[in-house]
Formats: sequence, C-alpha cells, structure tokens
Amino acid sequence: MNTSLILENISKHITLTEKETERFLSILEYRKLKKKHAFLQKHELVKQIAFVVKGCLRSYATDGKGYEHILQFAPEDYWITDIAGLISERPSLLTIEAVEDSEMLVFSREDQLRLFNEMPKLEHFFRIITEKSLAATHNRLIDYMSLTAQERYDGFCKRYPNLIQRLPQKQIASYIGVTPEFLSKTKSELLKKR
Amino acid sequence: MNTSLILENISKHITLTEKETERFLSILEYRKLKKKHAFLQKHELVKQIAFVVKGCLRSYATDGKGYEHILQFAPEDYWITDIAGLISERPSLLTIEAVEDSEMLVFSREDQLRLFNEMPKLEHFFRIITEKSLAATHNRLIDYMSLTAQERYDGFCKRYPNLIQRLPQKQIASYIGVTPEFLSKTKSELLKKR
Repeated sequence: MNTSLILENISKHITLTEKETERFLSILEYRKLKKKHAFLQKHELVKQIAFVVKGCLRSYATDGKGYEHILQFAPEDYWITDIAGLISERPSLLTIEAVEDSEMLVFSREDQLRLFNEMPKLEHFFRIITEKSLAATHNRLIDYMSLTAQERYDGFCKRYPNLIQRLPQKQIASYIGVTPEFLSKTKSELLKKR
Repeated sequence: MNTSLILENISKHITLTEKETERFLSILEYRKLKKKHAFLQKHELVKQIAFVVKGCLRSYATDGKGYEHILQFAPEDYWITDIAGLISERPSLLTIEAVEDSEMLVFSREDQLRLFNEMPKLEHFFRIITEKSLAATHNRLIDYMSLTAQERYDGFCKRYPNLIQRLPQKQIASYIGVTPEFLSKTKSELLKKR
C-alpha cells in the first residue's frame, strides 16, 4: 500500500507524530477500481471517503431523462465522496465511478469521526479541506451561472490542464453543462482564433 | 446584544461551558445594516463572518454585462461570508448586502482561528456546518445543472417557504438563474395548474 501521496497531502496542513501517522494509516483500506466500475452506486448508503492515488474518478447525478451531470472529477491527490449522503446518512443521489483504471485509499465515516475525537488535528485538517472544497464549489456555481460555455471550457482547461487529454469529450461537456456537439463547435471556434 | 439565537444555533452541535460561552461572545460584534447597504463590497478583502439575527442578506456575483447572480440568501439563523475570499485572503469576487434592514453578529477570521486553537470544539462545530454548507451547495449545483426553471422554482418554494413573500421577484429569478419575465411566466403557468 503506497501511502506517501496521502501523507504528503495531509502534511500540507498538519504535522503528525510517528504514532499518529500509524494510527491514521490503520484506518485506510487500499482499493483498485476498473474503468467504468462504481465506487458508489446511486441510492446506496454513503459510508466512505476516498483519496485517489492513481487514475481518476468522477461523481455525477442522473436526471429524469437519463442525462448525466458531472459534479466532480477526482484525479490523483484528490478526495472524493458524496458529502450530502455521507453527513445525512441518506441514500446517495450521486454515482461515483472510475474514469480510468484507478487506485484509492478508502476509509469509513465512522473511522473518520472516531479519529477526530482521538486526534483533533485531523479534524483541523478536514475543516481546512472542506472549506477549500466549499470555496471551489461556490466558484464553480458562479461560473455556471455567469459564464458562457466557451469561457467555462477555457476555465476548465486552465484548472485541469492534465485532464483535458485524459477525459472523453462527452464527460468534459457534461461537467461544463453543454451538449458534446456544442463543445465540439466551441473547440473548433477556439482553434480558428489561434 | 441579543445572543440567544447564535448560542442556540451552536448548541445544536456542541456544548460550551459558561467560561467558553463568555470567551466566544467576547469576539462578537453587533452590527445593523440598512436595506441595500453592503456588508462586503466586491474587490474588498474578506475578513469577517456574519451570523444573521434579524432580516436577510444575500451574496451575489456580477458578470461582465452587469447582471447579478445570487449565490446565497441568509435569513435569520444563517451564517454568511465569502468563503473563497476568506480562506485565500484575496479580494472578494462577491458582494454581500442586506435585502431588508438587518442585524448581525460578526467576528473576524483572525478571532475565529484563534478560538479554534483555544477551543477545539468550536472547530468541531465549524467543521460540521462547513460540511452542511458544502452538501447544500452540491445539491444547488446539481439542481442548476439538471432541473428545469419550473422545478428549480418549486424547490426554492419548498426550501424557503418564508422567504418567498419577503424577496423581490427579481432576486428569486437571479437565484434560480432565469430572467424575471421567465419566472413570472412560470408562476402563472403553475397557478393555472392549481
């Protein structure tokens, strides 16, 4: 189990002693997930949080017409769960699945809360990354409300330069909130301008 | 300074001793804000968090064409700030202003972080409400991506039954992401169906 990436991620905000590191690692479970396989199915109870070590996951909602709306991509070094389901203990409205063959370190909400009690500094860490995640989601919502599809595509390219090549066009379109045809038109207009 | 509402809000998740309550209250500043006056101006540094005691605030982004896009309404018993500006210490992209004559209890990020060190249980409280806020924003983004304007209006009525009468139509339209004309058409169609 390669834990260097997750420990590095955590060390950006807190310093764990050797004993605390050992305790934290004890709750982690290593999981491999094949491309298109689900980490979380819609309507399932949400009990776990994942840290992506390799590959990429995505979370999405499916509407009444069967269209997918992507909420988040989580490549290496990102955390992912369905936070609404996790904290309400209600069945998930989202599906979380692998975009590529992926590897994750996973732990349960139960273990996380137990560790918050044992180690307040771990709660400090998750308070910080939850704030960051909230800020990013606010920005995403504002972009969605106020920018054109072309501006949203530009923003996506800037924010995830490494993902652009890895993701199917259809999924980028679903994240930006346009049809794949519209994205393809936007991209060819951008190429003409360059 | 009426502090019963904020203490009740906090007591949903943590129990403070008398001494801790006193310490927490010592960082609060009482502020009145006239309707349409700003708690936070766009491009201003974000340094404070507000808890609304009376009235209602809203946060919004203004796009290149001067249109307002409302991110959040905060009536009584709600917390509001520009979290992205607050944690990045960058100038705000949002404006926060009073929809009605309002009263708030305000404290600085500096005092908040100092209190997290002194009282880990206060950080525990804010970890919980930040998670709730993230879940609500995820749901709002998914609604925005996947629902029709009419469904978003219905959702708004269900979530904020008391606000519908208090807010100008223009602001509800801006929150839902439609033009005021579209909202007025949607509402009259709804009335016809009843």
